[in-house]
Amino acid sequence: MMARAGIGLSVEGTHAVKAALDAGRVIALTVESGRAENPLVASIVAVAKASGVSVEYVDDVRPIAETTAPQGVVASATPLPTFTLKDLIGRGSPPAVIVLDRVEDPRNLGAIARSALAAGVGGLVIAERRAAPLSGAAFKAAAGALEYLPVAVVGSIAGAVRDLRRLGLWAVGLDETAEKPLLGLGLLSEPVAVVLGAEGRGLSRLVRDRVDVLVGIPTSATMPSLNVSAAATLAVFEISRARGGIT
Amino acid sequence: MMARAGIGLSVEGTHAVKAALDAGRVIALTVESGRAENPLVASIVAVAKASGVSVEYVDDVRPIAETTAPQGVVASATPLPTFTLKDLIGRGSPPAVIVLDRVEDPRNLGAIARSALAAGVGGLVIAERRAAPLSGAAFKAAAGALEYLPVAVVGSIAGAVRDLRRLGLWAVGLDETAEKPLLGLGLLSEPVAVVLGAEGRGLSRLVRDRVDVLVGIPTSATMPSLNVSAAATLAVFEISRARGGIT
Repeated sequence: MMARAGIGLSVEGTHAVKAALDAGRVIALTVESGRAENPLVASIVAVAKASGVSVEYVDDVRPIAETTAPQGVVASATPLPTFTLKDLIGRGSPPAVIVLDRVEDPRNLGAIARSALAAGVGGLVIAERRAAPLSGAAFKAAAGALEYLPVAVVGSIAGAVRDLRRLGLWAVGLDETAEKPLLGLGLLSEPVAVVLGAEGRGLSRLVRDRVDVLVGIPTSATMPSLNVSAAATLAVFEISRARGGIT
Repeated sequence: MMARAGIGLSVEGTHAVKAALDAGRVIALTVESGRAENPLVASIVAVAKASGVSVEYVDDVRPIAETTAPQGVVASATPLPTFTLKDLIGRGSPPAVIVLDRVEDPRNLGAIARSALAAGVGGLVIAERRAAPLSGAAFKAAAGALEYLPVAVVGSIAGAVRDLRRLGLWAVGLDETAEKPLLGLGLLSEPVAVVLGAEGRGLSRLVRDRVDVLVGIPTSATMPSLNVSAAATLAVFEISRARGGIT
């Protein structure tokens, strides 16, 4: 059997599986017998059966799960639709996207998707060779957000930054050492792409050179760096604030 | 041999172990031979040896680690000092503390400590029967923050909210359904305790009844709730903003 291609083929955790079911993507569901009475698991099974999705019961789903706490449900699903940069910027008014440069931890990726969707951002851009982190762990951390938030998978982040600028967006890079503060940045009310780098290593040099402005988040001397998903959460809600908030 | 009592007895992950070493808490270090050449691991070993800490090399530290990615280092340490509510409010000017009601995921707890320290908040209050989550996974997610941020472990969160109010702090509860927004709340420039509840279940009823005001973080209809550490990150940086920012 050939491995199936695409993003989001395996989804685990109650919220993520529920969202994939609601999106009509689930092909088959595996449920832990001992958790079948849990109200959320029971409602997932009911929806699956009503939709003609096959349900298999096992003693323990962990051997087929990717995370250590799959909450008793693992689903196999059809791939998520793929999106272009143009699709993403069609979503916001004005457009706002988050670009992730070298962010490899799937939990961070999922957490960023969740905060971005909550704050009303139009989409996420990730690099192709980093698409692997869009795994079961990412879907679980996203708590359903990856079913709704469009993700564009690109060959090169530096190329995507160039393309987004050509499409009329300001590119704002987040950098620990930048003196200009992210919080209060007026530019965020304009069409904007906020680019975040990996923890520790930060943005790649090519990406740093391509953005219009580098901004930072001032922190105390005893903890000079934030987790990348914490930084992304502050960025997406700052975009929302600059536009008058979620209404 | 009796189990040792206290918080922070086992620490793993390079940043967390480095911070515990700097704090002078590490008794013994176990290092993965294959990672000994990693620059950060090598500097940890050098500091440990210079401080007279015993270093043992093994093929794989994961069997003694709590997280799935201990980054090749696990330390056993003396317990962290314990703090009272009064200690915490002596740290800020004006005081600001974060109170966690039923937050049980150690990674969220660690992530919240990291953001709180970065934003300059004075300390964290957690419940005794939830002190277990101050585990290796919490220390790893905190990336060293738990060595610097004072944590008060209390018998009851509702009791702590009452005591903090008696000590002159405003108690602000975060609640998904509250209409008053957290972002822009002027009260945050006063002495303040922000109380966050567990994801899904929220604040316990007793705690809800005790706070001075309930506030929410407006989100989009497709993602109505934030991860608790994302909400806490927004709260601590909003406190910092209300006070004129980190300087």
